[in-house]
Formats: sequence, structure tokens, C-alpha cells
Amino acid sequence: MTIEASPSASSAGPVRLGMVGGGQGAFIGAVHRIAARLDGEFQLVAGALSSDPERARLSALELGIAPERAYTSYEGMARAESTRRDGIEAVAIVTPNHVHFPVAKAFLECGVHVICDKPLTSTLEDAYALADLAKSSGRLFVLTHNYTGYPMIRQAREMIAAGAIGTIRVVQAEYAQAWLTTKVEDTGSKQAGWRTDPAKSGAGGAIGDIGTHAFNLASFVTGLDLDQVAADLTAFVPGRRLDDNVHVLMRFAGGAKGMLWASQVAPGNENGLRLRVYGDRGGLEWAQEDPNYLWFTPHGEPKRLITRGGDGAGAAANRVTRVPFGHPEGYLEGFATIYAEAARAIRAARTGAPVDPAVVYPTVEDGVKGMEFIDAAVRSSAADGAWTKVGR
Amino acid sequence: MTIEASPSASSAGPVRLGMVGGGQGAFIGAVHRIAARLDGEFQLVAGALSSDPERARLSALELGIAPERAYTSYEGMARAESTRRDGIEAVAIVTPNHVHFPVAKAFLECGVHVICDKPLTSTLEDAYALADLAKSSGRLFVLTHNYTGYPMIRQAREMIAAGAIGTIRVVQAEYAQAWLTTKVEDTGSKQAGWRTDPAKSGAGGAIGDIGTHAFNLASFVTGLDLDQVAADLTAFVPGRRLDDNVHVLMRFAGGAKGMLWASQVAPGNENGLRLRVYGDRGGLEWAQEDPNYLWFTPHGEPKRLITRGGDGAGAAANRVTRVPFGHPEGYLEGFATIYAEAARAIRAARTGAPVDPAVVYPTVEDGVKGMEFIDAAVRSSAADGAWTKVGR
Amino acid sequence: MTIEASPSASSAGPVRLGMVGGGQGAFIGAVHRIAARLDGEFQLVAGALSSDPERARLSALELGIAPERAYTSYEGMARAESTRRDGIEAVAIVTPNHVHFPVAKAFLECGVHVICDKPLTSTLEDAYALADLAKSSGRLFVLTHNYTGYPMIRQAREMIAAGAIGTIRVVQAEYAQAWLTTKVEDTGSKQAGWRTDPAKSGAGGAIGDIGTHAFNLASFVTGLDLDQVAADLTAFVPGRRLDDNVHVLMRFAGGAKGMLWASQVAPGNENGLRLRVYGDRGGLEWAQEDPNYLWFTPHGEPKRLITRGGDGAGAAANRVTRVPFGHPEGYLEGFATIYAEAARAIRAARTGAPVDPAVVYPTVEDGVKGMEFIDAAVRSSAADGAWTKVGR
Amino acid sequence: MTIEASPSASSAGPVRLGMVGGGQGAFIGAVHRIAARLDGEFQLVAGALSSDPERARLSALELGIAPERAYTSYEGMARAESTRRDGIEAVAIVTPNHVHFPVAKAFLECGVHVICDKPLTSTLEDAYALADLAKSSGRLFVLTHNYTGYPMIRQAREMIAAGAIGTIRVVQAEYAQAWLTTKVEDTGSKQAGWRTDPAKSGAGGAIGDIGTHAFNLASFVTGLDLDQVAADLTAFVPGRRLDDNVHVLMRFAGGAKGMLWASQVAPGNENGLRLRVYGDRGGLEWAQEDPNYLWFTPHGEPKRLITRGGDGAGAAANRVTRVPFGHPEGYLEGFATIYAEAARAIRAARTGAPVDPAVVYPTVEDGVKGMEFIDAAVRSSAADGAWTKVGR
Repeated sequence: MTIEASPSASSAGPVRLGMVGGGQGAFIGAVHRIAARLDGEFQLVAGALSSDPERARLSALELGIAPERAYTSYEGMARAESTRRDGIEAVAIVTPNHVHFPVAKAFLECGVHVICDKPLTSTLEDAYALADLAKSSGRLFVLTHNYTGYPMIRQAREMIAAGAIGTIRVVQAEYAQAWLTTKVEDTGSKQAGWRTDPAKSGAGGAIGDIGTHAFNLASFVTGLDLDQVAADLTAFVPGRRLDDNVHVLMRFAGGAKGMLWASQVAPGNENGLRLRVYGDRGGLEWAQEDPNYLWFTPHGEPKRLITRGGDGAGAAANRVTRVPFGHPEGYLEGFATIYAEAARAIRAARTGAPVDPAVVYPTVEDGVKGMEFIDAAVRSSAADGAWTKVGR
Repeated sequence: MTIEASPSASSAGPVRLGMVGGGQGAFIGAVHRIAARLDGEFQLVAGALSSDPERARLSALELGIAPERAYTSYEGMARAESTRRDGIEAVAIVTPNHVHFPVAKAFLECGVHVICDKPLTSTLEDAYALADLAKSSGRLFVLTHNYTGYPMIRQAREMIAAGAIGTIRVVQAEYAQAWLTTKVEDTGSKQAGWRTDPAKSGAGGAIGDIGTHAFNLASFVTGLDLDQVAADLTAFVPGRRLDDNVHVLMRFAGGAKGMLWASQVAPGNENGLRLRVYGDRGGLEWAQEDPNYLWFTPHGEPKRLITRGGDGAGAAANRVTRVPFGHPEGYLEGFATIYAEAARAIRAARTGAPVDPAVVYPTVEDGVKGMEFIDAAVRSSAADGAWTKVGR
Repeated sequence: MTIEASPSASSAGPVRLGMVGGGQGAFIGAVHRIAARLDGEFQLVAGALSSDPERARLSALELGIAPERAYTSYEGMARAESTRRDGIEAVAIVTPNHVHFPVAKAFLECGVHVICDKPLTSTLEDAYALADLAKSSGRLFVLTHNYTGYPMIRQAREMIAAGAIGTIRVVQAEYAQAWLTTKVEDTGSKQAGWRTDPAKSGAGGAIGDIGTHAFNLASFVTGLDLDQVAADLTAFVPGRRLDDNVHVLMRFAGGAKGMLWASQVAPGNENGLRLRVYGDRGGLEWAQEDPNYLWFTPHGEPKRLITRGGDGAGAAANRVTRVPFGHPEGYLEGFATIYAEAARAIRAARTGAPVDPAVVYPTVEDGVKGMEFIDAAVRSSAADGAWTKVGR
Repeated sequence: MTIEASPSASSAGPVRLGMVGGGQGAFIGAVHRIAARLDGEFQLVAGALSSDPERARLSALELGIAPERAYTSYEGMARAESTRRDGIEAVAIVTPNHVHFPVAKAFLECGVHVICDKPLTSTLEDAYALADLAKSSGRLFVLTHNYTGYPMIRQAREMIAAGAIGTIRVVQAEYAQAWLTTKVEDTGSKQAGWRTDPAKSGAGGAIGDIGTHAFNLASFVTGLDLDQVAADLTAFVPGRRLDDNVHVLMRFAGGAKGMLWASQVAPGNENGLRLRVYGDRGGLEWAQEDPNYLWFTPHGEPKRLITRGGDGAGAAANRVTRVPFGHPEGYLEGFATIYAEAARAIRAARTGAPVDPAVVYPTVEDGVKGMEFIDAAVRSSAADGAWTKVGR
């Protein structure tokens, strides 16, 4: 066991953070806050936490945000914070998908770094526009594809880059959940409501909500570019307006092939994100619900179980590992690693210093790729599963 | 635990069995013999075990077959045995695929029941012809899709038929192996040789060798009819003449959808046949390598692990269970159950008595469906994955 | 994968086998018959299957034993068979414990090899006497500690002997079951009845029924000699006459230490025999319910999963392996291996040829050690857990 | 899924925390800080982080502690902080065992609540004295037996209290690690150094370091009182001064029995804390390395897998659950729950309000019981394993 220094190491004070969305009752906002807090790298000092003024005020109070920095609109917040000497350096956007674009735009234009939940936007056009904006802004854009923060995912990526499994042939990605097996959106669930509403989610349901995570993870780990998809999107629950089950065949540049299954109607599956990659020399298998383990199966040798912090773990995993082997890290730690990486980049940006090349996080470009994936899958499915080129 | 009476119970003497193929060095022939022997229901008394006369003779000697019943051709064996008063009642065909048809034809025409390895034939035309022949012969035709013999597969089938998971929506089938990751067919492996030779295997490689098993299992368990497939078949190993990786999207009559992945180039996978079925009320998950367990996941309740012989096991599983819970049964027991079921049917046929309706085994019709699946997948892949109707 | 020739290879005809006990309704008798049949090495030709004459007759009829060889007493059977030219060569004894001794004695004195269920006898005195008798008889004595027949147990034994885990320090053995959680012996269960009756089982309940299996397995795999035990035997179910839960501390010659837990009142445990061995260079872990896997954990390296027939499996495992990796073998196959090993020894004995040194099976001496273990544990528990010397 | 409100909910500002020990390079100090930070309930404002002044200063600087509150002695810190208006309300003690007592004493006497790492002290006498002191001080004493913070442990405790498994019969606890397999204390490891030094750890090695965790967990979950132990403590590594392997038989008040195994020389085991409890109606099984799962095995029914946040989880688990099912929580979250519970109690103490009866954390009394357990085991082992009464 060799655990690297804590990811929190820095002498220059925490990053001042604001948040848009994430008021009382929201799930992902609370997760972002814990993630920001866990390594002590951020301080939440401002927020437009709800479009409902009273809810915004109460949520801010509960979080210890000063009353004058509890905003009721993101536009107002962007303007006000960008003129304060102690204004926020970064904003976390944790709204439904269709709001990501205008909020991000507002803050980028005010010179604030953006940490944005996924998927990037609700339309591909917005995604392209946002990417252009982000690039020209000179600000950082961090997309919280949080599963890339797991140490064993870093390990898999490092091993593949080093050739441990040879040339990749087959990529099997899946993300199975059960929670939309019945028509939950009719029961008043806010979570289910916007996720199944095309106006808020965009053209994709399960494919946008969880399919993009699986796609992003496969891309992050393998380094492959997706070329074409053939998709069959289905809304199994009667009356549902967006897909709740997604079957996709994939062809990657260079000849690798794969499958992606995303479902929110698979009883018994809680948050079953799983990735299996096979090359001509070996394979790797990982499952999000048991994230501290990575199976490495060199062809012709016994299977090996690589554990977080354990004897087979390498540099890329160890630099984002907080506690020793056998002391499981989970979802929040992986999420926090995205924030910790963002903090490293933001601190470098403070002084214009170069970012440590080991720092990795998903960017606006990964967000564009995710939107291109959704777009191509939706179009393929509409064309009865015809192979469809991904991206421009 | 309530274990039913041993499957071997019968007072009328074992079934007289012959075998074609399966001489020294063959894998599946030895498996069939153990399966036939395990419950004491069969006695191997004749064989055309090899096309090589000396090998045929030695193989028979080793197996205790009388020299005069060690044949060098299946035609001669069919003729001779059908004229003996103590001639064989059934023949086990364990040759490469392309020989199944002529051998089965020869014996059916001589009034001998047939137990045949899968896939049924090497061409769809042969399959249709054989099915017609089998039906008109009045003889039994048992196809050894052995995985249907596992108790927990019987359990899953019974539960689905009883509505335990409601209306089926999603079927995820897979069969992953590693053993053809390199070009083993060039190293003298007889097993790899014929499986990758279109003249002996037919138009499908992995899809015929293992994909049909996965398809058959999904059909057996769900009772669904496959309507259309969209397939992407690949030969990843340079120079290989048949597919070694198969990605198939499936649409079933009635609206269920699914995926099937079969691969022989997935390092780390030994014999990874796995089935997951999700309905609107629950799910079931099973893996061949750990066959004594069945996950049952009723929606909205904790997951339950049903075990072979255990408290949740029902009649269909218990009637093919030999030893109590916790004493694992495996591949050979499942295979033997196909033989035991065949014996029950053959014994009933001796006297014209009706077969116990609980007796289940794959038939020539299942074999035709398997060939139609291969055919449709091969055609779909040739048409760049276009959705292709399965069967006539 | 290198699978050795089938264990059944032999040209000299099957071993003629008789059976005492195991009539209709018996569990272990049916298991012995399948085990004897599986590899085609034995032919069951005689039996004293029940002390009830009618049940003995019907059981024999069902098994295809000739009426004149269906005996109603083991003494009669021993006399009659030993004078037939085609008399049995070996007898399988599958009665309750207290009958093992007189039956074995009768057959050994008639020159018949003995295959006997465990534990060896119901008293230590009988065990010593039987061992003397077996030695002086010149006949083979095979004790069916069947778990030693699992390939991965052979693998573990071979690896330890080769020093793969260094000098052994800690041995953790356990055997947990649930089936006696309630007072089943009062419900008419024949299985539970004799196992909880001191007159039939001897002084030990769970310790004799399953504790000896765990002890035998630990001894077989490690090669260590047990020196002392400190035991706490309990009958948790009110009114039960023998222990149903066993806690034992162990000290082995040479300094290794261990624990053994055997319980028949542990709900959720079906047949949970499990062995973990740790040395100064590595560890091994195995569980009977998933017998095709062996964890090998060399200190300072990632864990490796060795699979039956897989890349890490060695000669000792492969010679008792029937089917390739990923095609699970189970309880019956392991049991059959004990019979296959016995057949090899018996065939060698036919001609006086030396037995292949690779042949391994538990003997009367292992049976004596098992009885000494029971005896020492019972005495230690009676002495409030005082450390008690094992054996003479 | 019904996830309760975040444990962080409070309007009264974070608890002001100090820390003794835990300077740069320390493991457990960093863990305590993350745990304190995760829910936003504490603010670290002072510290005596190292006995080395320069290291103390640098450690404090890195953690954002004001220079004037970076102390070089705990005595000075206790005095200074207790006179500040904004002085610390609680101190976290993360030193080696032998320093726990004087530090805790100093702060309790100054009216500061104590959060102390385990085991409580290095001698039983100190433990008794500290318990008296704590009680008379009127301050809170929280012992960080962190594993009691896992939601599935809370679930197990609640189920047992509600009678889900009936009357407890058997408790199997174990805690296996590998990291002291070789003589690491000779390689300069600070962690290994003090843990194997009787002057710093006390009379117990593995039994104090990890055995107490296993004992505490068993007590917490079952609610049973330990009556007697029979122990065999061993130092397997040549030259080691304290036990590195512990075998203990246990007798609980009321008749339940158990085993406890703790080892630091078990290669392949990372942090293998595991608890299995069996009653006359069912069983429960949990393993720390996969903490989001709890097996519940009602006798005579299929096994059920209860998951954190899932359908079978109850109130006690859900109130300490942060993220939904399938999003794994780990070691840090469990540890943070101890801090969150402490914060709730401290906040109540601020105003004298009653503490929510659902709040649970290990106290000084649990620490005394842990020390009595160590003491009795050490004495039993010295008396060759004689059954030894636990406690006064």
C-alpha cells in the first residue's frame, strides 16, 4: 500500500463557490455540496438555490450562506458576484438539463469557472454553442461525470493506455436501474418528473440521464472515439414520453465494437453501471456498486483482483485515493475527486501556473460528445436502428 | 428442502444407446456418455465412434462396447442395429454440425430415437428437412441444449409462466468465452478447427456454437417468440473465417426487446452464459458458472436468492434436483437431466404410454428455431445490421 | 486449459460393487450410487440395502440387482458374495455410524475391499480396532471424506506442499448448516433422528457429522497434524441430546493454530464448508458451495482466482477434472472422484501392480484421526474447554 | 427508497473542533478531519497536531488553522482554548493509545467534549479512571468505533432488537488483515511501530487494534453482554512483541456463544471485519469491505439481500443514509456518521435540550467494555486459554 498525499493539499485557501439549483429537497445539489466539502477545497458562499424566493432563502440559511448572497435569480447572482472583491470563483450548476446552458453562459460571460452537472445541455445545438463559449471565455468548464473519479476507473484507464490488455476489440457498457419501472412521474416525484419531460430533459430520457454516463465512462477508460451507433430506444411504461430503456450497438474508430444498455425499468438493479473491456491480450471488468474492485484478466493467466489502494494499484489510482485498502470509498468520494481536480485546476488558474498533467476531469468537450451520442442514438432509433454517424 | 424422487426411478431396464462420433480425444462425446450414465437410465451398447476404423475400434474397446457393435460407418450401424433384436433404441449424435443431418436421417429412417448435439444442422435447409423427417418418423428427437437442464433454469421458467415478474419487457442474454482470443485453429486444435470452418460449422461461428445456446435459453425461460434481429457479427482475430463476436439486438413478438452478446474473444470469461429477464413486476438473473443460484427481484422488495433445493425452489426445479441444497450440482448434472428426460419419453414410447407432462426437453423444433436465429443474424449482419425477420 | 484424460480410462472392466444400507428414501446411499456410476468404473451387483426385508427387496429390484443378490443381512451377504466366482470386489457401507464397524469387519474378513461413509465408527475404540483389522486384512479401506475429491482442494493441497504460501500459521475451518435450527428430530425425519441419537451417532453430534469433514479437509489440504484442541460443544435446541454447534480452538504440531466452527443451527447456511489457510508468504481460501474457485493470495501481490481447469490449475487438480473451465463440477463429481481413485487402487490390487502414486483417497487412518478429533473435542468440552491432547 | 433528511440539518452553526495528534503523515488524523468535514457539522479551529513543534506548525498551516491556535502541547491547548470566548467545544484525540488518557483528562477537566479514537486507553486502570472522570465531568465522550456508523450495521441492530432473528445463539466475529505478515515494524513504519510496542499500545496488539473493533461491533449489533472468554493470543512473526493473531471463544450472558478471530498476518485480507449472527429464527451477515449489503436469512425462507437505502432498509439505517441505493457509501461516510451523531449531541448540550433518542454513538462505557475484553483475553491466554470472566 502506498497512498499518495491527500488530494486536499494546498496552502492557498479554499475556492469560493456558488451554486445554482440544489435547494431543499433536491438530490444532486446535496451531493455536490458534500463533494465540494469533503476534501476541504471549496467554501460555499453564494447561491441561487431555487427559483422560488422563499425556498431559495431558507435553503441558503440552512447552508450558512450570508443572506445578501442568497439570490433569487442566476442572472442577478452572476452580475453581483462578479463585482464583489470576494466574489465566487466557480459556480456549480445543478439544475435540470435545459437550464444548464443559460446559467453556464451567464457565469462564463462574467468570468466565473463552471462546474456543471451532466448531460451538458438539453439540445445538441446548445451544446455546440456552449462549447464555443467556454473555449472563448478562457474559463474552466468541469462536467461532473462523477464516475470518472473512482480510483479503479483511473486504474483501468491507466492500464489500457499502457497496453495491459492490448488492442481493444469489445466494449460492453451498461447502466441498469429499476426506479422508473412504474409510472413514478405521475406520483408527484420531482426527480422523475423532469427526467421524463422532453421540455426539460431534451430528446433523450434514460439515454440522457444514465446512458451518457455509461458512454462517457467507456470513452474515458478506453480512449476510443465512437464512430457510429445503431439504437433501439423504448418507452416501456405506458404513457411515458421519453425512452426508459436503451439498446445501442456501437462501432468505434479503429474497429472496436460494443454494446450499451441503459434501462430504468430493470427491477433489482439499483445503480448498475458496469463496464467490461476486452482486448487481444486481456480484459478489465468494473461495476459501480462495488467500486473498489477491478478485475484484470490477462489472457492465459489466472484472473486478478486489483483493489483500491492495494498491491496492484498504480499511480493514477493512488493519487485520488484517500484511505487504505479495505476501507471502502464510495460514490461521494468519487464525486469529490472531480471537485478536487477542479480545485487544482482553478488554483493553477489563479496564478496562471500550469496544471499538473496528472489532473483529469471531464470537460465541455466531453459534454459535447455525450450530446452527440444522445443525438445519434435518438436519430438512429427514429430511423429504425440504421447505423448513424456520431457527431459532425 | 423437498427433494423429489431420483430422476432414475424406473423398473423397466435402461435404454439401449448407440453413439455416432465421440471417439478418443473428443470432448462432447465423453460428456454425453457421463450424462447418459449418471442416472443409470442408459446403457451404451453400440457405436460408430470415429471415421477412422482403428480409432473407432479402440474407442469402443475402451468403452466396453462389444467388438461386433463397434461400427466404422453410421450407415452400417443404423442398418445393423435396426435388425438386431437387442438393437439400440436411441442414438446420440456428437459429430461436427454438418454431419448431424445425414446421421439423424439414417437412424430416424431405421426407427431409432435421436439425441443430437446442437446446433441442429449446418444449414437452415437441412434443418427444415430434418424437422419434417423427424415429425413423419414418429421417433423422438432430443436436442441437447443442455443448459435447459439446470434446476434453476427450470425454476426461472416456472416462475415466469406463473407471472412472478409480470409482463416481460427486457431480455439480456450473453455468452462470453475467451478461448479463441488468439488464432487457436492454427495450432492444431481439433475443437477450434471445425468450429471456425464454414464447411463444417455452417455460416455462423460463435453465433452457432454459443449464440444459439444463449438464444435457446432465453426462449426456454421466457417462452417468448423472437420476431426480428439486428446483428453485427465480427471476426476479430485476423484471418479467422467465421465470426468470433456477435452483437444482436432482438425484438420479440408482443413487444419485449433484448440484447444478445456472444463472444469467444473475451479474455477472463470461461463459459459465461448469463441470462437476465425483466418484467413489469420483477426480474430474474442467472449465470451458468454459478448455476445453483437464481436471483429473484420483485419490484419494490429486497432481492431474494433462490437456491437449488432451497426454500424458494418449486416443483419444476425440484423434480430435476438430485442432491440437497448447498451440495452444488453442475454442468454434467444439467446435461444428464436432458438424458433423463429423454429416457422418460423413450420408456413411455416403448409402451405407447403418455409422457408425464412435466417432462421437458429441447426438440427438433427448437433446433429449427436456433437455425432460423443463426440465419437471420447472419443475413442482418450482411445487410449492415438491418432489422431482419426471423424464420419463415 | 489442459484437461487430463478422463478418470475412467481402464480396459479391465468395472469393479463389482455391493452396498450395505442405502435403501429407498436414504440420501447418502443414492449419492454413493451416482458417484460409483458417474465414471463407469463400478457395477452395483449386490446389496443388503435395508434391514427391512421387503424394503431391501424392492430397493434392489429398482436398482437392477438380481433377486438372489438382494440380501436381508450384511453377514449373509458377506458370506455368500465371498464364495461366488463373480462375487463383489468392494462393498460400500452407507449405514448410520454405529453399524460401520461390524459391517466393515464382516467384509474385510471375507476379503472384500471396503468403501465406508464417515465418520469411521461411533466410538474411538471401534475405530482403533477397525484400523488394526483393515491393516491386517490386506484389503483396501476407502473412507468417503468426499470433499477431498474436489479439484480445487487437490490444487490447494498441491500448492501448499510446493510452498506457495510458505510456512502455515493460521487455519480457519468452518462448516455451517441451518437444517437443525428447530427440533427436526421430533418431526419424523430419519436423517435428523439418527444424527441426534448418541446410540447411533456416538458421543458427537455436529462435530461427528460435519465437524469431522472440516477437520479432515483442513488436514488433507495443509498436511498438518493436530496436536491439541480446546472445545465448546453446545446443544442449542432445547431437548437435543447431542451438540448442534461446535467451537474449537486448534493447535497443530509445528506451531500453526486454528479455529473450527461447525454448526447445524445457523440459518441461511446450506452446506457452508469453508477453509482458509494462511502462511508467511500467502493465503488460500475455498468454499464448498462454490467449489470451482480457489483464491490464492500471495502476500504483496493482487489476489488471484484460480479456477478448475483454468490457467492456474496444476497437475493434481487436472487429473481429477472432467470438463473444461467454466463448466462447473459439483458435489457429485467430487464424490465420484473418491470412487474413481478407489477403482484405480482396486484394479491395481487385482494384479498386484503398484498404485499410481498420484492416486489419493482418505483411508482408515484418516478415519481414526477423525475419531480422535471427535473424542478430544468431546473430552475438552466436558473439561470446560481445557486444552486436550488429540490421539494416543 | 425513502432517504431521510441529510444528517447535517441544523441552523445553529458548526461545532468548533480542536485536534490532538494527527499531524502530517498520520493516517487516522486525516480520516477524522474528513469525517468531521463531510456533513458540514464541524469546523476545525485549533490543534496540537504533533509533539514536534515545527511539524505541528506546518500541519496547522496546511489545515487553515490560525497560527495562534496551533499549539505544541495539549495541556497548553486545553488551557488556552477553555479561556477563549470562541474556544473549541470538542476535541478529537487521535494519538497512540497510551496518550488517550492524559489528553482526555486535560480537556474534560477544562469542560471540553471529547471525541477519542479507540481503544479507550492502554491499560484497564486508565479506562476505569477515565470513565469515572467522564461521568463526573458532565461532558460528552464519544469513542470512534466508526464501524457502528455504517447504515447496514444500524439496520442489523434494529432488526435484532425487533426480534427478526429471534433469540441469539451464535455470534461469529472476525477481523482479518494482512499488513503485519512480515516484520513491518522494523522497516520504519510509524503505524506498525507503535501498534507493536507494548509501551504505546498496552498489553494487546491485534486484539487491541482490531479485535476491539470486532468485539464492539458484535456488542453494538447484538446488544449482548460478554460474560467469559477463552483466548489464544499469538505473535507469529518472530521477534514481534505483541500478538498479531487472536483466537477467542466467547460466552455471552443469557447463553449465546461465539468466536472472534482477529489477525494481522492473514495474507489476502485487507480490512476484513465481518459479523455473522444467528438466532433461533434467522441470521444476519455483514462484511465491512462491502458495507452496503446486509444478508438477512429468515429460517425456512429464501435469503434476502437488504441494501443501504433499498426497499428493506428501516428507520435506523435511513436516518444515517446520505445518498440513494446503489450509490455506495463507504468507510468515510460511516466514520462521518459518528461525528454527525456527536454534533447532534453537542448541539443539544449547548442549550440543554434533550438529545434525539435515535442518536447513537459509542461512549466511554463502550470503551471500558473494550478494555475489559482486551484484559480478559490477555489474561485467559496467559492462563493457557482458561475461561476468564470479563470485567469486574
